[in-house]
Amino acid sequence: MNLKPIYFNNVYINSSSSFVGKKEFNGPVGADFDAFESDEYFGCNSFEEAESEMVRRNLNLLLKKANKNFDDIDLILGGDLINQCTATSFSICDKNIPFIGLYGACSTVIEAIICGATFINNGFYNNAIALASSHYCASERQYRFPLEYGSVRTPTSQNTVTGTGAVLLSSTQQTIKVSSGVVGRIVDKGITDANNMGAAMACAAVDTISRFFNNCDITPNSFDYILTGDLGIEGHSIAREMLNFEGLTLGDNFVDCGAMIYDQKKQDTHSGGSGCGCIASVLCGHFMKSLLNGNCKNILAIGTGALLNPNSVFQKRHIPGIAHAIHITTEV
Amino acid sequence: MNLKPIYFNNVYINSSSSFVGKKEFNGPVGADFDAFESDEYFGCNSFEEAESEMVRRNLNLLLKKANKNFDDIDLILGGDLINQCTATSFSICDKNIPFIGLYGACSTVIEAIICGATFINNGFYNNAIALASSHYCASERQYRFPLEYGSVRTPTSQNTVTGTGAVLLSSTQQTIKVSSGVVGRIVDKGITDANNMGAAMACAAVDTISRFFNNCDITPNSFDYILTGDLGIEGHSIAREMLNFEGLTLGDNFVDCGAMIYDQKKQDTHSGGSGCGCIASVLCGHFMKSLLNGNCKNILAIGTGALLNPNSVFQKRHIPGIAHAIHITTEV
Repeated sequence: MNLKPIYFNNVYINSSSSFVGKKEFNGPVGADFDAFESDEYFGCNSFEEAESEMVRRNLNLLLKKANKNFDDIDLILGGDLINQCTATSFSICDKNIPFIGLYGACSTVIEAIICGATFINNGFYNNAIALASSHYCASERQYRFPLEYGSVRTPTSQNTVTGTGAVLLSSTQQTIKVSSGVVGRIVDKGITDANNMGAAMACAAVDTISRFFNNCDITPNSFDYILTGDLGIEGHSIAREMLNFEGLTLGDNFVDCGAMIYDQKKQDTHSGGSGCGCIASVLCGHFMKSLLNGNCKNILAIGTGALLNPNSVFQKRHIPGIAHAIHITTEV
Repeated sequence: MNLKPIYFNNVYINSSSSFVGKKEFNGPVGADFDAFESDEYFGCNSFEEAESEMVRRNLNLLLKKANKNFDDIDLILGGDLINQCTATSFSICDKNIPFIGLYGACSTVIEAIICGATFINNGFYNNAIALASSHYCASERQYRFPLEYGSVRTPTSQNTVTGTGAVLLSSTQQTIKVSSGVVGRIVDKGITDANNMGAAMACAAVDTISRFFNNCDITPNSFDYILTGDLGIEGHSIAREMLNFEGLTLGDNFVDCGAMIYDQKKQDTHSGGSGCGCIASVLCGHFMKSLLNGNCKNILAIGTGALLNPNSVFQKRHIPGIAHAIHITTEV
């Protein structure tokens, strides 16, 4: 079994873009998103259509930033949380571009970047878009309760991010390179609390982070940020403690998009943000900007997903987690 | 945009295995499946767990046939129809093997082979398992009605296959080679009848088959079988007619796993079989055996998926289709 990172020779990030809802725009990293929409329906008839519309608008933004059009794109890879990944498929069903549908729960955008980079590294394609999305209202009614119920949430619960992020991967040299990736393993530690998914995902994040540092020469201090997706405040502190226990003590560069995207005190988001759109939007917004303006050079981004569905919770089954990682760098 | 097939240099099929339910075992190609189970619960407490158990048993069979164990496997790629692809994730959550979760509806096993072949072709991994599954009872209650309702089905409806298929892809030379692949595009022709998914998928199959033959030197007659996944009798005749209309007249070598897996008259399965497990089990059972015993040499296998969920049908949205293809050959 090969548990080492896989290394890409010639895979770059041409452009990235992010599109979020109003709450995310009003959060601490809101200014770094490319666009936001106040209407949670995005002008559509349902929350599910709204999510597709958000992805559609973000793809238009991405191509505008890259000065390309859809005819230049060889492949789209991505997914979302809506049953059977329809938010993504409806958003691109008129684009006539080869599509790889992925499901890695909230780790999907990182899984998409790894797969896209593998296709490009092979020389199969020159331009591939990797994306993921989530929508608060669509997720809430699918996974928990219709919003109208006004259900009270537990302190460890997280707030699904209305947001999407997309990157245009390219074989042509650019400022940001996708240096390597770690394909995650499913980790099942017997967690059963669907209101504490951070704990379920933390175990997977620890496995992936350990595998990365145990199998390469780079030290954690070489990274400006070691960035988890949506462990949230609770899950991130669990991951830090577990990594400590394994002898991998991470410093202030160990951060979490779910803990960053909202102001927990002012925005009443309990343990933080979650959803495919969390790391997708924060990575493609805040962190890509930091890389481009030289504020940071090396990021290890770890997408974290909880592999449950509402039925599996009712059936009292465990919540396994998975975490995929990529190393992106401007030190080309 | 690169719409051509992608070509693999060194990707082989080490082994394959298939596991089905009793109805599939009693069908015309039943003798070619590796194993079957009469109990639709597979000894578990729910149909969803049963599907995972079927995948688990099939993986054990696959490794036994390959004379390998789980420690030899670098990567698993796959998915299923159950919400959030949990049938697959629960089946492998104790295996500690890197995992790429995919969703291509009923085209998933072909999507998995294309992605797995791409990872192997890069030299990233030596052994990767590609798999997909579906379970009649689990799918019926998720997509349509609980079986207890005894709902009457339309003549164009299909019967979800209880079955799974898995291949072990390898970088070491073997009898069967994965020669090339075509990543499908989403095709939306405005179909809205969820009881006629063959029609929705037929349009996508036609797009992929046309792209294959328009972009390579191989003629349809060079193939022993041009094999669609689960168009069923209705969808397959639509695809044949559409291909004729495009000037691509296919002969008796154009067949469909959904039309083959049941005896429509005796087994009351209307337009045929469907589901991720349909092409997965028939390809890994019947057709891999034909390749290995020299009865055929070249197969173009086209997985066909309908990108809907129950909500999208209630919301009166279209049913887009997607089709991924691989060329497998013993002419190494």
